[in-house]
Amino acid sequence: MALIVHKYGGTSMGSTERIRSVAQRVAKWVRAGHQMVVVPSAMSGETNRLLGLAKELNPNPDTPEALRELDAVAATGEQVSVGLLALALQAQGVPAVSYGGWQVPFETDSAFTKARISRIDDTRVRTDLAAGKVVIITGFQGIDPDGNVTTLGRGGSDTSAVAVAAAMKADECLIYTDVDGVYTTDPRVVPEARRLKTISFEEMLEMASLGSKVLQIRSVEFAGKYHVPVRVLSSFTPWDIPLDEEMQSGTLITFEEDEKMEQAVVAGIAFNRDEAKISVIGVPDKPGIAYQILGPVADANIDIDVIIQNLSHEGKTDFSFTVPRGDYQRTIAVLESQVLPSTGAARVLGDPKICKVSIVGIGMRSHVGVASKMFRTLSEEGINIQMISTSEIKTSVVIDEKYMELAVRALHKAFGLDLPTAAEG
Amino acid sequence: MALIVHKYGGTSMGSTERIRSVAQRVAKWVRAGHQMVVVPSAMSGETNRLLGLAKELNPNPDTPEALRELDAVAATGEQVSVGLLALALQAQGVPAVSYGGWQVPFETDSAFTKARISRIDDTRVRTDLAAGKVVIITGFQGIDPDGNVTTLGRGGSDTSAVAVAAAMKADECLIYTDVDGVYTTDPRVVPEARRLKTISFEEMLEMASLGSKVLQIRSVEFAGKYHVPVRVLSSFTPWDIPLDEEMQSGTLITFEEDEKMEQAVVAGIAFNRDEAKISVIGVPDKPGIAYQILGPVADANIDIDVIIQNLSHEGKTDFSFTVPRGDYQRTIAVLESQVLPSTGAARVLGDPKICKVSIVGIGMRSHVGVASKMFRTLSEEGINIQMISTSEIKTSVVIDEKYMELAVRALHKAFGLDLPTAAEG
Repeated sequence: MALIVHKYGGTSMGSTERIRSVAQRVAKWVRAGHQMVVVPSAMSGETNRLLGLAKELNPNPDTPEALRELDAVAATGEQVSVGLLALALQAQGVPAVSYGGWQVPFETDSAFTKARISRIDDTRVRTDLAAGKVVIITGFQGIDPDGNVTTLGRGGSDTSAVAVAAAMKADECLIYTDVDGVYTTDPRVVPEARRLKTISFEEMLEMASLGSKVLQIRSVEFAGKYHVPVRVLSSFTPWDIPLDEEMQSGTLITFEEDEKMEQAVVAGIAFNRDEAKISVIGVPDKPGIAYQILGPVADANIDIDVIIQNLSHEGKTDFSFTVPRGDYQRTIAVLESQVLPSTGAARVLGDPKICKVSIVGIGMRSHVGVASKMFRTLSEEGINIQMISTSEIKTSVVIDEKYMELAVRALHKAFGLDLPTAAEG
Repeated sequence: MALIVHKYGGTSMGSTERIRSVAQRVAKWVRAGHQMVVVPSAMSGETNRLLGLAKELNPNPDTPEALRELDAVAATGEQVSVGLLALALQAQGVPAVSYGGWQVPFETDSAFTKARISRIDDTRVRTDLAAGKVVIITGFQGIDPDGNVTTLGRGGSDTSAVAVAAAMKADECLIYTDVDGVYTTDPRVVPEARRLKTISFEEMLEMASLGSKVLQIRSVEFAGKYHVPVRVLSSFTPWDIPLDEEMQSGTLITFEEDEKMEQAVVAGIAFNRDEAKISVIGVPDKPGIAYQILGPVADANIDIDVIIQNLSHEGKTDFSFTVPRGDYQRTIAVLESQVLPSTGAARVLGDPKICKVSIVGIGMRSHVGVASKMFRTLSEEGINIQMISTSEIKTSVVIDEKYMELAVRALHKAFGLDLPTAAEG
C-alpha cells in the first residue's frame, strides 16, 4: 500500500462525464490498495468565467481589498470540483470526502492572487485516509493568518498537489494533464520529439522556466525542495488501463543523477517567443549604469530576462535585454521618458520579433563543447545569434523569430534527441 | 445613523448589470450615514445549475456524506455573489468586505441541506462596520461544529438575513425581492388586491405557511422570535429613488398590535393548490385509530396538513387529511399496503384536484362571526366546503380546485380588502 496524490487539470474535470471518468480512475487505484489524495482543478473555463464577471464589475482590482475579493470568487471554481468529484466517487461506492483549502488547512501568506503556502496541517487528511476515505482537496488556494481565502495564482493547483505530497511524504504525486509527459521539445514543432521517461528535477526546472508549459514552475521548485517524486502523465488514457501500465507512463521527475549517467548530454530543447528585445544605444560607460537603465524598468514591474552589455568603445557602450512581449511598448516608454534624459544615452531600439531557444541538460555540467556545438549548428543553418545566456545546465540564444522552428529542429537532430536511446532513458 | 441589513434575491443578483445596481442602492444608504450589512443570494439559476451537476454525478445523494458534498457545492453560489458585490461596491469607492458563512461564522447544526443556525458570532462584522466598511455575508449557509459547510435549504438566505439582523439588533432588515410587498392576496388572481403597508408578524407567519411565497417561513419565525423589524420591498424600483420614499415602500412586518386596532379584521387571503385530499373510509372507531392511520404516513416523511375525522356511525368513521400533491400516489400506496390490513378499514379514496383557501387576520381574535361570514360567502357562490381547519387568526377551507379563483375573489370583496382604508393601514 502506498500513499498517492493525484492532480487533475481543468480539462480532465471539464464535464460531468469527464469527472465520472476521473472518479473511475481513482477508484481503480483505491481497489489496488492505495491511500489516495486527489487535487482537482476547477472545471475548464470556470476560473476565467468567474474572473470575467469580477472584471466586469471592477475593471482594475489592484487594491489588497479588491484582490482579496477576487481570490474569494476565483477559489469557488475548485470548491465546486472537489464536491462533485466526491459525489461521483460515492456514487461508485468509494468513500470520499472533500475539503476546501481553508478546511485542511493550507496556510498561506496574505499575498492575494499569488499567495505562498507556509504550512499544511495534514491531521484531518490522515484521519480520513486511515478511515478508508479518498480525500479530495481544492488546489490553487489556502487561508491566510487572518482567515481570508487566498489563491496561489494560475497553475497553482500543481503546486498544491506537490505541496500536499511533500507534507504527507507521499510515495508519488501524479499530475494528470492533457499531454502524456515531458518531451524533448514541442512535438508540434518537431514531429520527431520523444517523450522522456525520466527528467532530472533541475532540467525540469529549466524547461519550466524556459517556456515549457507542462508543469507550473513553482510546483517544480516545491518538488525539488522536498524531493517529491512527481510524474506527469495523460488524463486521456482510458481510465481502465492496467495499473502497472499507468504507473510506468508519462515522465517521472527524478532526483538521482546516477540513473542518468548514460543519458544524453542534452535532455530537451525549450523555446519561447513571448519576449521582445530592447537595446539602449550609446550609453556612457560608467559604474552603476546597468542599475540606472534597469532600475526604472524593474520599478515599472517589468520582468527582465536576458541581459548583455557590449564591449565599451570610446567610453560608450550598448546595452540590451529582453522583456515580456506584452511589456514591449511600456518598456520603451519608460526608457525614453526616464532613462535617456538621466544617462545621456543616444537612443532606444527595440525588436519584438525575436525568440529564445534553449538547450537544457544536466550532462552539460560534465561535458565540454555543448554550447559551441549549439552555436555551430545554428551557424550551419545561417541563423544569426543576437544574444547568449548560459547557466550550469542550459544555454539560451536569442534569434530572429522567423528562424525559431528551423533552429529547434536543427538542434533537436544535432543533439540526437530523435534517437530512441537518447530520449527514452 | 442606523444599522441596516439588506437582503437581495437571486433575480436582483442575476447579472453583472443588476449587481452593479444593487451596489449603487447600497452605496446610497451608506452615503445617508447608515451602517450596512448585505446578504445577497446566489445569481439566479446558479444554485440549480450546481445541484444539476451534482445530480448528474450522484442521482440519489441521500447519505450524510453525500448531503455534505451537496452543501459544499451549493454554497459556492452565494460565495461568488458576495465577492462580486464587494468588488462592485469598491469600484464605486465604497469600502466593502465579503465573508462566507464559515468566516463570520454562522454556526449551525449538522443537518446538511436543512441546517439550523445555532449562533452567529458578530465580532468580525462589528469591527468592519466600525471601520466604515459595508459587510457582505453569504446567505443560505453556515458551518457545523466539525467545520463542515452546511446549507439552510431553499430560501435560507432570507433566514440568514433576519438571523444576522437579530444577532446584531439591527434597526431594520430589508428583504429586496421581485414583488413590492405583501398583498391582500395574489394580484394575478384578484386584480383589486392591495399592498399592505404593515402586517403583523402572526399574520405573516400564517400567510407564509399557507402558501404565500413572499417570505420563507423560517425567516418569519426568526423575525418573530427576536422581534426583528422586517420590510419586504421591491428590488425593481430604480436604485436612485429618494431614501425617504424607499424607507416607506413595501410591507413592514410589525409586532405592535395597537397599531392595527383600526385595521380590517381580515388582512389577507392565502391559497394553495399544492395539496391533495385522502380519505380512509369505514374505519373502526377505536382509541388510537388516528395514530394507526397517520403514523405510517408520517414515517414515510409525508407532511400531513388539514385533518378531519367524521362523526362515528355504527362504530365506523371516515378519516380525511391533506398531503402535498407530489406525495399523493405514495400516500395511497402506504395506506393500502400498511393501514388497510392493520385497521380493517374499508377503502382509501383520494382527490388530488382540491385547493385550500384561507382567510388570515389578527382581528379574528376579537371579532366573532368571521368564519361564518366566510362560509356564507362561499355558500352564496355555490361552492361546497369539503374540509375546515381553524386557528386563532386564520380559517382554512378545502374546496374543489376549479372554484379557487372564484372563492378568492368573492372572499377578497366580502371582507372589504379591495377598499383603500382596509388594506393600506
